[in-house]
Amino acid sequence: MSQKLQAPRGTRDFYPDEMRLRRWLFDHFEEVARRYGFEQIDAPIVEHEELFTRKAGEEIVEQLYHFELHDRRLALRPEMTPSLARMVLARSGSLRMPLRWFSLPQCWRYERMTRGRKREHYQWNMDIWGEPDVTAEAELIAAACDLLDRVAIPRGDVKIRINNRKLLEQTLAQSVLRERPERFAPLCVVIDKIDKIGPDAVLELLTDPGGEVALPPEDGRFVVDWLGLRDLGDALSSGPAHSSGGAELSRLFELLDAYGIADRVVFDASVVRGLAYYTGVVFEAFDTAGELRAICGGGRYDNLLETLGGRHTPAVGFGLGDVVIGELLADRNLLPDCTRELDALVFPFGETERRAAVGVATALRKQGLAVDLVLNEARLKRVLSDADHNGARRVYLLGPDELARGEVLVRDLQSGEQHTEPLAEPDGEPPHN
Amino acid sequence: MSQKLQAPRGTRDFYPDEMRLRRWLFDHFEEVARRYGFEQIDAPIVEHEELFTRKAGEEIVEQLYHFELHDRRLALRPEMTPSLARMVLARSGSLRMPLRWFSLPQCWRYERMTRGRKREHYQWNMDIWGEPDVTAEAELIAAACDLLDRVAIPRGDVKIRINNRKLLEQTLAQSVLRERPERFAPLCVVIDKIDKIGPDAVLELLTDPGGEVALPPEDGRFVVDWLGLRDLGDALSSGPAHSSGGAELSRLFELLDAYGIADRVVFDASVVRGLAYYTGVVFEAFDTAGELRAICGGGRYDNLLETLGGRHTPAVGFGLGDVVIGELLADRNLLPDCTRELDALVFPFGETERRAAVGVATALRKQGLAVDLVLNEARLKRVLSDADHNGARRVYLLGPDELARGEVLVRDLQSGEQHTEPLAEPDGEPPHN
Repeated sequence: MSQKLQAPRGTRDFYPDEMRLRRWLFDHFEEVARRYGFEQIDAPIVEHEELFTRKAGEEIVEQLYHFELHDRRLALRPEMTPSLARMVLARSGSLRMPLRWFSLPQCWRYERMTRGRKREHYQWNMDIWGEPDVTAEAELIAAACDLLDRVAIPRGDVKIRINNRKLLEQTLAQSVLRERPERFAPLCVVIDKIDKIGPDAVLELLTDPGGEVALPPEDGRFVVDWLGLRDLGDALSSGPAHSSGGAELSRLFELLDAYGIADRVVFDASVVRGLAYYTGVVFEAFDTAGELRAICGGGRYDNLLETLGGRHTPAVGFGLGDVVIGELLADRNLLPDCTRELDALVFPFGETERRAAVGVATALRKQGLAVDLVLNEARLKRVLSDADHNGARRVYLLGPDELARGEVLVRDLQSGEQHTEPLAEPDGEPPHN
Repeated sequence: MSQKLQAPRGTRDFYPDEMRLRRWLFDHFEEVARRYGFEQIDAPIVEHEELFTRKAGEEIVEQLYHFELHDRRLALRPEMTPSLARMVLARSGSLRMPLRWFSLPQCWRYERMTRGRKREHYQWNMDIWGEPDVTAEAELIAAACDLLDRVAIPRGDVKIRINNRKLLEQTLAQSVLRERPERFAPLCVVIDKIDKIGPDAVLELLTDPGGEVALPPEDGRFVVDWLGLRDLGDALSSGPAHSSGGAELSRLFELLDAYGIADRVVFDASVVRGLAYYTGVVFEAFDTAGELRAICGGGRYDNLLETLGGRHTPAVGFGLGDVVIGELLADRNLLPDCTRELDALVFPFGETERRAAVGVATALRKQGLAVDLVLNEARLKRVLSDADHNGARRVYLLGPDELARGEVLVRDLQSGEQHTEPLAEPDGEPPHN
């Protein structure tokens, strides 16, 4: 088959079966967002490339779907946050903070293709703007847990790792980065790879004399040891005294206890997330079996609006992709049974009955029913088989006898019961308006 | 403001207000599709460029958002039909015809910017595959009329012009195109401009000796005269005897009468639609005031699957864009009042009450309510003003007195009435799982 006849590699077609699953998942995204008082927004999938490349060194820039058109450098969004920030900036005078906004953007990244990887995915984004307190992080993490519950992932199969870049930064500022604080951002980019490449390879990258971080070996070792911490108490006692990053984490864990989700979150000093704009708390949901990529990732990005030339505006958010959670549900056999539903199939035996059949279908549709109308001459056996295949509840049969009596025969496909109903619009008196 | 901080020209940001309107419109699209038994599908917004450029000479190709990435020529979809055909082709062995599929794709065209023009729009696509009879056209046109009714456009403000390319082709095959039938497709591209440029300019293009059609002047005049026909009887009597195209139109108008929409459709010999793949009935909805572009356009494209190398499979569909119908509704002051809705705002007076407030919000959300929780210390006056601004129905107030009594004060913002409710989770007994 010619290349043009296939969807580009790493992209998905959604046939009705796949679309019903997507709708099921999106409905849950929207319902959780509604319960948490979030309003939906959207932005164009194409933006000026510069919006996404304002900071170098991120993997995301190398993976951009970018192009030039009529002298403009454009790109498909790899993530929603820059567009969101642009929107907040454009109306910063009139928007009433705090904002609770969610979106369901499709995002594109040109990644190397391996099993289960896609180049596009839909991402449920939830963001709170204008709130500096970690109460915002707590709301977001609680919402993410609610989503996991709604799609019936067993409690315990997914946990959320939490860290605070500030705690790491404040710790390193007193030690290995005291003379070189500017290396913190590239250091985070390296650390973010730890799940993929392991601590030894991270140590190698951190201490590579030709790299951007270029730590002496003992300093690299200090960092990697720190990343191994999994107990917040240990981190607080070995970190700097009075670290605001540490205090935020303590408070956040207390709040999460108030939400009843203390058992679903863990401290993890190795979580930094890959994006350069994060400034504080960062978190990610992962499957405890350790088989998948992060299910959801987010954090605080208080400086992003300033980076774009706006006023300091605290913000925090997360993104949860449809592909990874779909894999998790499929692996656990938790995908719901979303079959097609049809209330009625209307079948005129021949052309003589077509006009009356149109009247029956129209009347049923006016009542709000989902109605298929057989559009050509067909054999009853085939029609009943189609009706069954399409999940129809009832078939409305209209033959010459029914038409002569001004009736339609209604068969319930589950019970097999039959009854007749009068034709609302007798043939010969079409509804002229 | 720097360019990167603006959405690309001709694209839209959807802030919550605009997004609620979009949702309102999409909900109507989906509801009509459901009632007509259509299943939703989707395809990637990026396809191989070749899928869209398989035929030259169409305006749509010049307006393509196309680009090259890692040696692949890609493009943003300007319309949905080619992707749809690709999907049908890929599963042609297993799909059970007829198919009733709908989609809500965003489509991109790089058009010259004038007032009200956009470079992207969302398009409600409804297509029936596998049905050769005009019963399929009738279902689709009835569905489009139902949509117009649902969004409350006054009957009569929008009509649907119907024509059949076959009738035109059969007429011209016996006259001006007898020696040159291959010029029919480019002729349609020219004719499609008649609304924009008028009959004189169309005549000029048709008879331009350097153009693709290059008719002698008297033949061009014959075509333009034909295009002026608005009565199907006239067309049938001046067209060829036994034209199958004419017979299809007669039957279609009869069927539309059975749907009760005979008053909403007119024959118009000038309608051909711009896309090269149409083969039979074509139609478009237009505002009778004549102020806007076509609201909806569609037709039969029985040969498209063969063009892509598949088996002959009859198909017919339409697209209805969100931008034009939005303009029509705005012009007529028919846009609905979609304000934010919030069931409850929960307000802890201070940090002491936060834990209990989280419990209240969580309990209300579990009941399915849309709940905003005040995330920081705020003054009551400001909170009440925010609640009002955000459309909240009730405010849950939690001060030290309420907490001491194990209660929360509930104020109904419409009636002003107040009552207290017990706190479900007394503070000190957080729900540990």
